[in-house]
Amino acid sequence: MLAVLSGGTGTPKLLQGLSRLLEPKELSIVVNTGEDFGMSGIYISPDIDTVVYTLAGIVNEETWYGIRGDTFFCHEMLKRLGEEELLMIGDRDRAIKIHRALLFNQGKTLSEATKLLCRKLGIEANVMPMSDDRVTTYINTEAGVMTFHEFWVVRGAADKVLDVAFKGAEGAEPAPGVIEALEAADAILIGPSNPVTSIGPILSIKEIRATLSRHRGKVLAVSPIIGDRAVSGPAGALMQGLGYEVSSVGVAQLYRDFVGTLVLDNTDNHFAPAVEELNIKAVFANILMPDHINRVALARTILELAKFK
Amino acid sequence: MLAVLSGGTGTPKLLQGLSRLLEPKELSIVVNTGEDFGMSGIYISPDIDTVVYTLAGIVNEETWYGIRGDTFFCHEMLKRLGEEELLMIGDRDRAIKIHRALLFNQGKTLSEATKLLCRKLGIEANVMPMSDDRVTTYINTEAGVMTFHEFWVVRGAADKVLDVAFKGAEGAEPAPGVIEALEAADAILIGPSNPVTSIGPILSIKEIRATLSRHRGKVLAVSPIIGDRAVSGPAGALMQGLGYEVSSVGVAQLYRDFVGTLVLDNTDNHFAPAVEELNIKAVFANILMPDHINRVALARTILELAKFK
Repeated sequence: MLAVLSGGTGTPKLLQGLSRLLEPKELSIVVNTGEDFGMSGIYISPDIDTVVYTLAGIVNEETWYGIRGDTFFCHEMLKRLGEEELLMIGDRDRAIKIHRALLFNQGKTLSEATKLLCRKLGIEANVMPMSDDRVTTYINTEAGVMTFHEFWVVRGAADKVLDVAFKGAEGAEPAPGVIEALEAADAILIGPSNPVTSIGPILSIKEIRATLSRHRGKVLAVSPIIGDRAVSGPAGALMQGLGYEVSSVGVAQLYRDFVGTLVLDNTDNHFAPAVEELNIKAVFANILMPDHINRVALARTILELAKFK
Repeated sequence: MLAVLSGGTGTPKLLQGLSRLLEPKELSIVVNTGEDFGMSGIYISPDIDTVVYTLAGIVNEETWYGIRGDTFFCHEMLKRLGEEELLMIGDRDRAIKIHRALLFNQGKTLSEATKLLCRKLGIEANVMPMSDDRVTTYINTEAGVMTFHEFWVVRGAADKVLDVAFKGAEGAEPAPGVIEALEAADAILIGPSNPVTSIGPILSIKEIRATLSRHRGKVLAVSPIIGDRAVSGPAGALMQGLGYEVSSVGVAQLYRDFVGTLVLDNTDNHFAPAVEELNIKAVFANILMPDHINRVALARTILELAKFK
């Protein structure tokens, strides 16, 4: 059994590879919900949706958001009517989100709705939100406090980051099954997602973080950084703002309490001493995953490390 | 000022003609809401939507429902997810209905939402629901009690009609502005819609019916029946079930308390004595409106009768 902590771009790529090599029932995925928000009567959970669409084989791999080949007629009309429509939601994607909103209206929780949706889309892996309680990521910058969406999508991570907060995390419980899956897993993988705003919200839930710490020996992470640059997204600006070096060493520092093994890019092998100094085993692989072959190869490396094969 | 009572197919055709000849501000339309229902989180008001789309020039004239050239991707996905989706709602059409649902969430009434929608679609005519209270048409048949949708769309009007009821009509108030528009109108036109389930629900609101009775002299109706057949829809089966002759004479009997002039088809001039016996003036015109030219011509006849020109 492999448990994966996931954000919305890097880790889903790796999940494509992992889902080729593992039986779906061997895979549990705990997904960030810190960027969730309501819009036009539907509930947007960017990372859950990308993970679900990835596992269903229908994700748009150009953007790692929404459904491949979707149309946007409803979205365009809603904009013309004056609705905010912060995100472009495709017509098929919207149907899935409307279906989820209707499940909420029937009293279903986010984890129940996610399970039902997975079943309808033929996904057998166990996809769970980190929590059914609402936890929202806010970025405190020199230009003020803003959501991740505003910081990254609207303003292009141009503002100097002072701090990051996870509103609601204090009292949030892990979603049903999350702790059990982490406990039962042969290995826990922290995917190559933004450590601050994709993995950070998951770790902001005390019980999840404590469980990882207790099982440090079986926790592996894949660095989302090569050299001094994030593979994608604003991880660099965020790590820098929090006072961490933008490198796999910075990632190791962020994860030192609960990660036993860190997978770095082959080109970063000079970081080995600094990582091992933190009592983290440094392992090297090609962590850039532009295509399916790389994704399967990295997945195979991880399963070997985790002694699955 | 012309006030029109409208259902969802025949009267909108005539509204196309009327809107060519009248200034929009001279036109008030009171629309049946007896077939309204909620579905997939949106509110469907079939007749309001057809009237609004007709006046906006975007109605699908093949079906007199929805928007011309619309796509159905969201609808198809919702069906696959197991949502009931009783009606095919197009992607653009759905956006408009989502917008309305969001206006309801903000506390807007159906008449307020209709006004806002009309403004956004560039409609200056005064479109009003018959009521902001929920009134629902039920058909009591030998196969049981059912909604109009089930009676007509699902079962093709195959069941013998015993009775028709308008649930909620007892305590329903006319929507704001309806009585004022009827009072102020130089003429009130009952469009060529199904007298039982399109015009019937409007008349089930006591104050509306009483206002029409008080102004019988200025109330004109266009028969929706030619010979012994309804031009479209199940008006025949419904009239028969209620014990009325399926002809313009039956329509005259249904409307005798509040209609001063009835427009019958040219081919029905043998009905003149029976209609005039009810103290209703019988006028003859070509009431079949397969195309735009017929719609404008009938509209012109009506405006002449109403002494508009």
